[in-house]
Amino acid sequence: MSILVVGSVAFDTVETPHGKVENVVAGAATYFALAASYFTQVRVIGVVGEDFGPEHEAVFAARNIDIRGIERAPGKSFFWQGSYLDNLNEARTLQTDLNVFATFAPRIPEAYRDSEFLFLANIDPVLQKRVRDASPQAKLVGGDTMNYWINDHRANLLETLKGVDILLINDTETKLLAGTKNPIKAAREVLALGPRSLVVKHGEYGATAFFGADSFAGIAAPHPFRAPALPLAEVIDPTGAGDSFAGGFFGYIASQPELTPTVFKRAMFYGGVMGSFTVERFGPDRLQHLTRDEIEERFANFRELTHLD
Amino acid sequence: MSILVVGSVAFDTVETPHGKVENVVAGAATYFALAASYFTQVRVIGVVGEDFGPEHEAVFAARNIDIRGIERAPGKSFFWQGSYLDNLNEARTLQTDLNVFATFAPRIPEAYRDSEFLFLANIDPVLQKRVRDASPQAKLVGGDTMNYWINDHRANLLETLKGVDILLINDTETKLLAGTKNPIKAAREVLALGPRSLVVKHGEYGATAFFGADSFAGIAAPHPFRAPALPLAEVIDPTGAGDSFAGGFFGYIASQPELTPTVFKRAMFYGGVMGSFTVERFGPDRLQHLTRDEIEERFANFRELTHLD
Repeated sequence: MSILVVGSVAFDTVETPHGKVENVVAGAATYFALAASYFTQVRVIGVVGEDFGPEHEAVFAARNIDIRGIERAPGKSFFWQGSYLDNLNEARTLQTDLNVFATFAPRIPEAYRDSEFLFLANIDPVLQKRVRDASPQAKLVGGDTMNYWINDHRANLLETLKGVDILLINDTETKLLAGTKNPIKAAREVLALGPRSLVVKHGEYGATAFFGADSFAGIAAPHPFRAPALPLAEVIDPTGAGDSFAGGFFGYIASQPELTPTVFKRAMFYGGVMGSFTVERFGPDRLQHLTRDEIEERFANFRELTHLD
Repeated sequence: MSILVVGSVAFDTVETPHGKVENVVAGAATYFALAASYFTQVRVIGVVGEDFGPEHEAVFAARNIDIRGIERAPGKSFFWQGSYLDNLNEARTLQTDLNVFATFAPRIPEAYRDSEFLFLANIDPVLQKRVRDASPQAKLVGGDTMNYWINDHRANLLETLKGVDILLINDTETKLLAGTKNPIKAAREVLALGPRSLVVKHGEYGATAFFGADSFAGIAAPHPFRAPALPLAEVIDPTGAGDSFAGGFFGYIASQPELTPTVFKRAMFYGGVMGSFTVERFGPDRLQHLTRDEIEERFANFRELTHLD
């Protein structure tokens, strides 16, 4: 089934201990869409500027991703520059130019109206809610957010969370959103805000899923589920790992006939798999040239890494 | 088979956000021995002072732990005082009084000479090596260390590591010992120092085992194995979690007829299980009153937490 994703499509300039790339096609929606494209049909809503040419569109076309929902606006595309020279686990933002994103008002093309899966990547929660409200047909809604929205746009974010089935955020964001440090208590607090499940991403340590009191996908509290990450010898560029996790996770779910406990768990593994590929090269380079066999092989490695038998 | 453990037996005074306990029987050898005692016969080598009375010996006796190797010396027992008020993940040491431990010279009783399993808990690597050299019958040797020995007694530690089969240390210690931050590269560096396998403890994220180039327990590089920790709603007192992990891990291995890949993996799970019990109450209180059924139930929870089917 088709996934509709709304989020940033951007140009990134990134420096890590392994080198530097300039103006690569990136952004949360891009990483998400590329990762999900190995599992199902993906449609993107976003905005780019006049600097976004055919060679950039080709990144999506090559993966058969529908970008009719990406508007072209006067001006320049969203630009982000970051450095991982100090810490490979956390980017230092050197520059953020919203450009065309500053006045972005998402519109859903008619052709997208039957999307049964909706993912609200990390953007202004007001825009997330607008897309969610305009998608009554969506039977499963995933979402992401970040510290900035949690701290400075909390009221809007809380409204958005009421319409999200699966929230995917990292450890720091979970604790900040909950206002408590204990991981279990923080998860309970976040689930009380509306999401039916919470997937907390731990970077190199994988991710843990928590479920609310109501049964969801046949899973009910108090049974969390933890999927590992693969220890990697070389992390070239961590940018987009979390968005790729979300894309692999949601893409796999959308490819299955039904959301069962097993599907949810396997989706967590596929999320980890796609995130682990992303960090192996700069930008979304690795995500553009995978095969399904490579994905399945790594899935098997993840399984072997953590299973007793 | 019997495990011989050498390490500290101490009195701890600990403060956490949940309260404070004073002068509880603790120390690495105590946590290790209690955790391992649910799986196999344990013998302890250590030293205590005149303040260590029958009520303290009862902690070991109740678990059928052999303490004929614990010497009684003139003076007071090793004393440690720590606080977790600032950070539940890392103790702030307020006081360390070595007392009788300052002049400790381990001696192995005749009755211990047939111990096939040896664990060198975190003490001066010179003492660790002395016990290791005096135990030629040991067919499997585990060991632990800490930042102080890595930084200030490196040469001695490197000598000790040559005689260790399985080194169990945490993330920080691994990176410090290796001199590199990447977890895979750090593991390779540490394995090059002598240990045939390395178990890196990640606290709330479990532990990862790495194996050297030579096959060990039927497992050879480059296949790490990761065991999860159980997310816990309440961490009352983290003291001793790592030593309890080591005790559960080594205890289970010693209880099995042969060290196979499956036994190694299951041992990692049992390590996590015993560590998770320890932190539920102050000091080693929880470790003194477990049943094998409780241990098996939690083992099943750990399995369910991470397994796809």
